[in-house]
Amino acid sequence: MALAEIGRRGETGVDRAAFSAEDRAARRLLYVWAGECGLEASQDSIGNLFLRYPGRSGELAPVLTGSHLDSQPSGGRFDGAYGVLASLEAVATLSRAEIRPARSIEVVAWSNEEGGRFAPGAMGSQVFAGARALADVLTVRDAAGVVLSDALAETLAALPEAAPRAAGPAPSAYLEAHIEQGPRLDRADVPVGVVVGIQGCLWLEYEVVGAAAHAGTTPHEYRRDALQAALELICRLREMCLKRSPTCRFTVGRMAVEPNTPNTVPGRVTFTVDFRDADPVGFAELGRELRAACIGAACIGAACIGAAGALQACELHVRELFHHVPETFSKHLVDVVATATRAQNYPEFELVSGAFHDALFVAKVCPVGMVFVRCRDGVSHNPLEYAAPSDVTAGARVLMSALLQLAAE
Amino acid sequence: MALAEIGRRGETGVDRAAFSAEDRAARRLLYVWAGECGLEASQDSIGNLFLRYPGRSGELAPVLTGSHLDSQPSGGRFDGAYGVLASLEAVATLSRAEIRPARSIEVVAWSNEEGGRFAPGAMGSQVFAGARALADVLTVRDAAGVVLSDALAETLAALPEAAPRAAGPAPSAYLEAHIEQGPRLDRADVPVGVVVGIQGCLWLEYEVVGAAAHAGTTPHEYRRDALQAALELICRLREMCLKRSPTCRFTVGRMAVEPNTPNTVPGRVTFTVDFRDADPVGFAELGRELRAACIGAACIGAACIGAAGALQACELHVRELFHHVPETFSKHLVDVVATATRAQNYPEFELVSGAFHDALFVAKVCPVGMVFVRCRDGVSHNPLEYAAPSDVTAGARVLMSALLQLAAE
Repeated sequence: MALAEIGRRGETGVDRAAFSAEDRAARRLLYVWAGECGLEASQDSIGNLFLRYPGRSGELAPVLTGSHLDSQPSGGRFDGAYGVLASLEAVATLSRAEIRPARSIEVVAWSNEEGGRFAPGAMGSQVFAGARALADVLTVRDAAGVVLSDALAETLAALPEAAPRAAGPAPSAYLEAHIEQGPRLDRADVPVGVVVGIQGCLWLEYEVVGAAAHAGTTPHEYRRDALQAALELICRLREMCLKRSPTCRFTVGRMAVEPNTPNTVPGRVTFTVDFRDADPVGFAELGRELRAACIGAACIGAACIGAAGALQACELHVRELFHHVPETFSKHLVDVVATATRAQNYPEFELVSGAFHDALFVAKVCPVGMVFVRCRDGVSHNPLEYAAPSDVTAGARVLMSALLQLAAE
Repeated sequence: MALAEIGRRGETGVDRAAFSAEDRAARRLLYVWAGECGLEASQDSIGNLFLRYPGRSGELAPVLTGSHLDSQPSGGRFDGAYGVLASLEAVATLSRAEIRPARSIEVVAWSNEEGGRFAPGAMGSQVFAGARALADVLTVRDAAGVVLSDALAETLAALPEAAPRAAGPAPSAYLEAHIEQGPRLDRADVPVGVVVGIQGCLWLEYEVVGAAAHAGTTPHEYRRDALQAALELICRLREMCLKRSPTCRFTVGRMAVEPNTPNTVPGRVTFTVDFRDADPVGFAELGRELRAACIGAACIGAACIGAAGALQACELHVRELFHHVPETFSKHLVDVVATATRAQNYPEFELVSGAFHDALFVAKVCPVGMVFVRCRDGVSHNPLEYAAPSDVTAGARVLMSALLQLAAE
């Protein structure tokens, strides 16, 4: 709650953009708290902030744990910040109990996970994992024209006590605690979840080209109505996906209609499909079929061309905006989190993450696992985001148990 | 083609906004041409320009004929201008032939039919017919902040030769020639059409309120997806209309999605329905049912709530944007136009106008009739608008025959 005062908007909202004054204040507060636990601070070139609890064997690869401190422009108190503080609390508890495992444990606050100010997000974890080059992101500008390299330099300089991070071995494992940002734990009445992976995600943009025409004078049989064709296409694509993969997610979130006046038959409609599936085979197969719409409506199958026939009259183009295959977490880390959950006497509930997290990128360099905690009504990216004290405690307990196990290995 | 040079854009486009310098130039050219035929010019308070061919009996109510000179911002050469020039040509032919009927014939160029600069359109004919008060429109401003009263005063002052129009009896009849702006004559390969009425038109705006949610983390069963609900609603409404009235027109031309990002389930969607029907009974009944959706999706009939059930999860509001009942033209004027068509040896083809015209409003003060001429591919409000010389000639011939008949009555 003290951290949520930094960038607070209204009663419970938070606006803490990456590399902003608020972000710098949050990093300093984290540094101060970590210092009280005797942790050693360092920063890397993209501004990821590391707080090290040294293990008995300095030469072993550390266990990494954390999340991010930046927020959505109209975000809440828990997304990201919870995972950083749960990690700190877990390590602080070990420190107070004078438990010193073989491996070091490093708490990390990843830079710019949200990407709301400087796109894209997950920048810190991507640069850390080598998924994106530092040089590529330094020239990114925010809406006000500020270049990232300047904002980053100011952020690094604001914490001179943190040493430049020394090169070292890749972590032996990475664990991230996070609010679920979805309703499954809440509906199942379970405080914590064992995350087994992150859904694959495919963003496609469809363009349907018909012919604009006067709504009053053009009989239906002469129309090439791009909106009616788009509706038909969406219905067919959605049905195809949900029928073949009942657990997939199919969302049309963005749509643009041209010329978009009441009395003109639409001549052009574009819409996006956000398709997600946890199963790598289903994700690949359905992704192929969704993309195949670009070679004409025929690809959807002759039976799918409805009675209205609007689709037949229009041209269809598809382009890919984004694509990430499903990530299945290391079985060992899933087991460690599940064991920790049972050890803390919470029911074991496995689930797949619907959203991305820094863990998705860190998985490129070491095994990763995640602990989810229940959030009220599944609401996130919203000032109303809420997780109960008993649930955030549960998540931190599971995290601590799991970290202890991993640091002993 | 000389008139189309005024406000010409590109090869065949025209941009001649109401009360603009281009509009003033077009009015002056019309005045000059009318003067060459000996017609007497007058202007009324909203800027309608009248050009009188005096009849033998000055006390009889005149026959009125014309259309408008203003265009859409990206309009063509024929919409409106054709009707004014066909009327002038018809009267000029009578004048040259020294045929002077009992009634005077007045050619009129109505002010601001398109409404692209000063909304709403059909302002001149509405004020003439008492459907709208002059005082109500004088304060309208264009996008640049110019008030209509100023632009109108400048327009009236630019033609000081035209006398202020004297009060007089309502016309005995009004005839308007116009390009069809639709494809029916073109598809039927017929040069001219006898217009029997103007479709009723109802504009409704539907608002579907669901709940915005994360596309990745929210399972389908917990969603209140406003876009999916809107698609379902559109399909149902469209099917209802087309099934019960196969000749009606149902168009969803405008749609707005919120928040309109690829990875958010839409929380709110608004869309318009433009519904038109020529049959007064069908128009009233279906209009009632379309409006009734405001009291909840249940009104569409239980059977209409699809398997997806998205509609059930959302709130629904409907508001009326515009409403005009079908106009059935005077049987006598339809007969006069049909007789004139046969007299000029053209096939008789009856049709209902899908678009509004000034005739719709003039019908409040006298019987009205219309002659349509074929336009290529039904294209209008577009620089590619085109009508062949033989077809515009056909329309003017039919108009002249009909005017001669009406002026003799």
